[in-house]
Amino acid sequence: MSRRNVTQKLIESHLVSGRLIPGEEIALTIDQTLTQDATGTLVMLEFEAMGRDRVRTELSAQYVDHNLFQEDFKNPDDHLFLQSACRKFGVWFSPAGNGVSHPVHQERFGVPGKTLVGSDSHTPAAGALGMLAIGAGGLEVALAMAGEPLYLAMPRVVGVELTGTLPDWVSAKDVVLEMLRRYDVKGGAGRIFEYYGPGLDALSAMDRHVIANMGTEMGATTSVFPADAEVRRFLARQQRGDAWRALEADDGADYDERVTLDLSRLEPLIALPSSPGKVRPVREVAGEAIYQAYVGSSANPGLRDFAVPAMMVEGRRVPPGVSFDINPTSRQILENLTLHSYLARLIRAGARLHQAGCNGCIGMGQAPASGRNSLRTVPRNFPGRSGTPEDRVFLCSPETATAAALTGRITDPRELDMDYPRFTEPEDLVINREMLVPPAADGAGVALVKGPNVKSLPDFAPIPAAFRGPVLLRVGDDVSTDEIMPAGAEVLPLRSNIPAIAEHVFKAVDPEFCRRAQALDGDGFVIVAGRNYGQGSSREHAAIAPRYLGLRVVCALSFARIHWQNLANFGIVPLTFVDPDDYATIAQDDELALDDAVEALAAGEELSLHNRTRDRRYRMHHGLSPRQIEMIRHGSLINLIRRE
Amino acid sequence: MSRRNVTQKLIESHLVSGRLIPGEEIALTIDQTLTQDATGTLVMLEFEAMGRDRVRTELSAQYVDHNLFQEDFKNPDDHLFLQSACRKFGVWFSPAGNGVSHPVHQERFGVPGKTLVGSDSHTPAAGALGMLAIGAGGLEVALAMAGEPLYLAMPRVVGVELTGTLPDWVSAKDVVLEMLRRYDVKGGAGRIFEYYGPGLDALSAMDRHVIANMGTEMGATTSVFPADAEVRRFLARQQRGDAWRALEADDGADYDERVTLDLSRLEPLIALPSSPGKVRPVREVAGEAIYQAYVGSSANPGLRDFAVPAMMVEGRRVPPGVSFDINPTSRQILENLTLHSYLARLIRAGARLHQAGCNGCIGMGQAPASGRNSLRTVPRNFPGRSGTPEDRVFLCSPETATAAALTGRITDPRELDMDYPRFTEPEDLVINREMLVPPAADGAGVALVKGPNVKSLPDFAPIPAAFRGPVLLRVGDDVSTDEIMPAGAEVLPLRSNIPAIAEHVFKAVDPEFCRRAQALDGDGFVIVAGRNYGQGSSREHAAIAPRYLGLRVVCALSFARIHWQNLANFGIVPLTFVDPDDYATIAQDDELALDDAVEALAAGEELSLHNRTRDRRYRMHHGLSPRQIEMIRHGSLINLIRRE
Repeated sequence: MSRRNVTQKLIESHLVSGRLIPGEEIALTIDQTLTQDATGTLVMLEFEAMGRDRVRTELSAQYVDHNLFQEDFKNPDDHLFLQSACRKFGVWFSPAGNGVSHPVHQERFGVPGKTLVGSDSHTPAAGALGMLAIGAGGLEVALAMAGEPLYLAMPRVVGVELTGTLPDWVSAKDVVLEMLRRYDVKGGAGRIFEYYGPGLDALSAMDRHVIANMGTEMGATTSVFPADAEVRRFLARQQRGDAWRALEADDGADYDERVTLDLSRLEPLIALPSSPGKVRPVREVAGEAIYQAYVGSSANPGLRDFAVPAMMVEGRRVPPGVSFDINPTSRQILENLTLHSYLARLIRAGARLHQAGCNGCIGMGQAPASGRNSLRTVPRNFPGRSGTPEDRVFLCSPETATAAALTGRITDPRELDMDYPRFTEPEDLVINREMLVPPAADGAGVALVKGPNVKSLPDFAPIPAAFRGPVLLRVGDDVSTDEIMPAGAEVLPLRSNIPAIAEHVFKAVDPEFCRRAQALDGDGFVIVAGRNYGQGSSREHAAIAPRYLGLRVVCALSFARIHWQNLANFGIVPLTFVDPDDYATIAQDDELALDDAVEALAAGEELSLHNRTRDRRYRMHHGLSPRQIEMIRHGSLINLIRRE
Repeated sequence: MSRRNVTQKLIESHLVSGRLIPGEEIALTIDQTLTQDATGTLVMLEFEAMGRDRVRTELSAQYVDHNLFQEDFKNPDDHLFLQSACRKFGVWFSPAGNGVSHPVHQERFGVPGKTLVGSDSHTPAAGALGMLAIGAGGLEVALAMAGEPLYLAMPRVVGVELTGTLPDWVSAKDVVLEMLRRYDVKGGAGRIFEYYGPGLDALSAMDRHVIANMGTEMGATTSVFPADAEVRRFLARQQRGDAWRALEADDGADYDERVTLDLSRLEPLIALPSSPGKVRPVREVAGEAIYQAYVGSSANPGLRDFAVPAMMVEGRRVPPGVSFDINPTSRQILENLTLHSYLARLIRAGARLHQAGCNGCIGMGQAPASGRNSLRTVPRNFPGRSGTPEDRVFLCSPETATAAALTGRITDPRELDMDYPRFTEPEDLVINREMLVPPAADGAGVALVKGPNVKSLPDFAPIPAAFRGPVLLRVGDDVSTDEIMPAGAEVLPLRSNIPAIAEHVFKAVDPEFCRRAQALDGDGFVIVAGRNYGQGSSREHAAIAPRYLGLRVVCALSFARIHWQNLANFGIVPLTFVDPDDYATIAQDDELALDDAVEALAAGEELSLHNRTRDRRYRMHHGLSPRQIEMIRHGSLINLIRRE
């Protein structure tokens, strides 16, 4: 037997099907799930629609950390719905004010050796504890809650050997920025980064969280750390020593790829606007005036990430015109900052304290002024993500952000005239778990609380045996899910309400689309598209909402992978033209027909589509698996699960 | 000489013109001004347009406390503009994070015996220190900054004699709720409430702030307290002992009206949805389940208003499903709460801590869920003000709100099984003034920072001697300023940008209005209206923005008073029909003409308007003062001030 790495051990111990050969499909049992409020409402509605009454995981947890502004009833109604769904379905509920999902999950629920799937792209942060933690779409999380395995292509495992120790003024954020400097934002695709080596010793479990969290920015499937003595210490400090079990790589373990990172050679790094991959030494951009220094988020969530800034600013003050925004990660971090006199130092120095939560990291407030520089400890600086178009957001460590807050300019913290403050975790660390709400012991009597903006998922009937429908819209190449289902301030609050959000489908492409769909009688309609249909964001609403309006078939020259999957999941037949020239022969309003659709799909990879308006027949290809055909036979994956 | 009350002394010492006879117009010199960010940008743009380079007041202060969310660049750009305007014009600047204007002003800048005008309706809170503090429109504040007097009708002075002392569990909020129970939301109109008597002794300066603040809810011009030993103590504790001077009523002072309030007979009170005047004893509505208990705002801003809740919840915890929202008033309050261990107790008990500022009190977040009860210490519960339509917001003391937070139901705090916690102000009270930014000593070299959404006020030319223009819109009775110039999330961020906000004028009444105005050539246009034109909110944008589009004359059956004033201020001629039947004879698109408009206004109270389309002449009345005619002659009040 080969000498196995941590990733292999995690996968082998959860393997339902497949082999550990990079690229081959594997299926894994899932021990835990994580949802946040922005994605969680749909997950809970999907779980409800599956007809399940209780989660089958060892532990599921739902956090309210995204939509905290409550400008009207929609967000608080969503929160109440989630709380009732948690009680009913057997999920822990973390209400608004408890803080960001990932660090709270690590502190309260993380268990070495377990698998975790979360409907948030930074779910991999839990890899810090020796978990296999993967971000996924809402439906995949709902399936995991229902006890279904998670399917994925076996990634390549990159062994990252850490050596040396970090110099003064250099911290975990600089480690992952160095990784981003090397791999850029796509270099991690199809890969799991597994960290090992002597350099680990000086990285706390929360430091490792920083690194695992931002593995997502490299496109990695996840990042993994061993469950070693530090993880044991961490769990003991969290009063969860029982959760610890050792999980380390075998001596001389194999990796698909190897890379070495000497911590002692790192310096303060910074990602320039507007990509996490545009990493430079801070000293190269030092001197630029800043508007904002922002500390917080799941990419620097630890007590030390606030305590070090507090020690740096003690007896000093930020200059007028600099916004020094402090975003406590969690209730527990806020309580410890308060009790151990860090918070008072920050406030006195001029910090602006915000509520515990994701906040500006996800564009909920703290947008920078036009053309002004913002230094943030958050994981991402995609263009406009801060809320300000053409924003100038830099990513850096708390040390670098605080140095800039004090000088008003981008500053290499080593240039400050002060000793590097040594943080020691307080002996009397306070644990705050009282505001986590356990599920009801028996959910049978619990009613789901649905405000006027929370609607159960519509029931989707299977496609008729003899389908006839018009081409309601014909579009060109590269239509994105943003065009199919827009986001934005007007639309996002409707994500728990499919009938309402459906009125925005294709709004920018064709403002009359929804009205035309609603005016149709009959079996539904078809969309005809060019290449790469459904590119961009993986949002499921881009399949559900058109399906709600009556979409049954999409004929395209090609599909973006995830949207293709989402279409099948919601019972929409995705077909590609065998002869690309046929695409040009179909016009909007042509009536198309598909006879015995499901049987035709099952019979082979090609089927015949009839253009009744022009009396032409098209050869169409589908790459659906037998299981996907079953989804279409039942109307949707949710229906299939409900019947199983 | 009569025995004078505090109000009379304040007015006499600032009287420029008029007599102290209720109803007669008086003019007062203004010592201080207060602006907040939501109204302040327009004030600063008006001050700029007046061509002044420096304020003439003893002290002016600008606070950023309203628009703290920063969902895009507009709010932070406004903040930067305000900061630059403050430096230039000689105004103190309080950045985001410093907290709510009224309590900060009282702590840092309030001076007994002085007058204060503020562009915020709760400006009267400063009456707690023996100031005459009045809320006004933005232009009136800009004029005060320019050294112009404030004009108002002399109010009646109501002497409110306080006797006795407050029972346990009853506090200042219950005092003003009792006043609201007696006077309701209009009973204070044309009145100043002056508090005196032995009951004052047990009310701290911040308790008095609570009472003066909510005098606004009764429609009062302001509320006044004496500058007594407690004010002296308060200022000394704020390290501003030098600011103190005694100001008390003469023995046996006269009042226009008198009322007595025996504090010892009060009990916990609560205002029901959705009016501050619907006051009942808490015990009458006890038992109703709550969703939210909200502590904070200028209506309960003191350290004790947070410390008492903290002591109440110590060792206890709010039940799941209750949102216990803590909104620290100011940086200084937050620092003291942190240092004196109150904050930690609140967090541990389950409170959700928000940033220092106005927050949910002005509908910026913390909206309650649909149909759920919210108990708040804020001053107002007008329908929908929380952000949730048909909301259920109750107003009460911090004691009552916290009792409900602990039980999950509306609860008379006397029914809790605990001793009333006695708050004693800490000996080592921390004063936090370091983040208040003084103006530049010389503003000449300071440039105004105007982001893309901040535009200088347009220059308004006088009406042409021979005006010809079409009736661009003809409306009926009771058209409100909300219809003329809508508010709402889309429009409010444009309030520093007249060209942009003008595109929304009359949008709900006539979506094409703006386009039609822009398409016009010539002298501009006329609006014809029925009775009570311009009712509702006093917003100046309802005059400025139509004027920007070309509005020169409004012909109405009658006008709402403040809008009529705003029209004249911005050079628009407001005319009423002498013969109401003439209104029906004018149609949209008729061309109207006014010859020698300014001379005709000056010549007498009537003038002749020519309907060229129908060849009719109308007798029109105006009630403009000579000064208002001068405004129209110069194009606007701002132009007039600039020329003076």
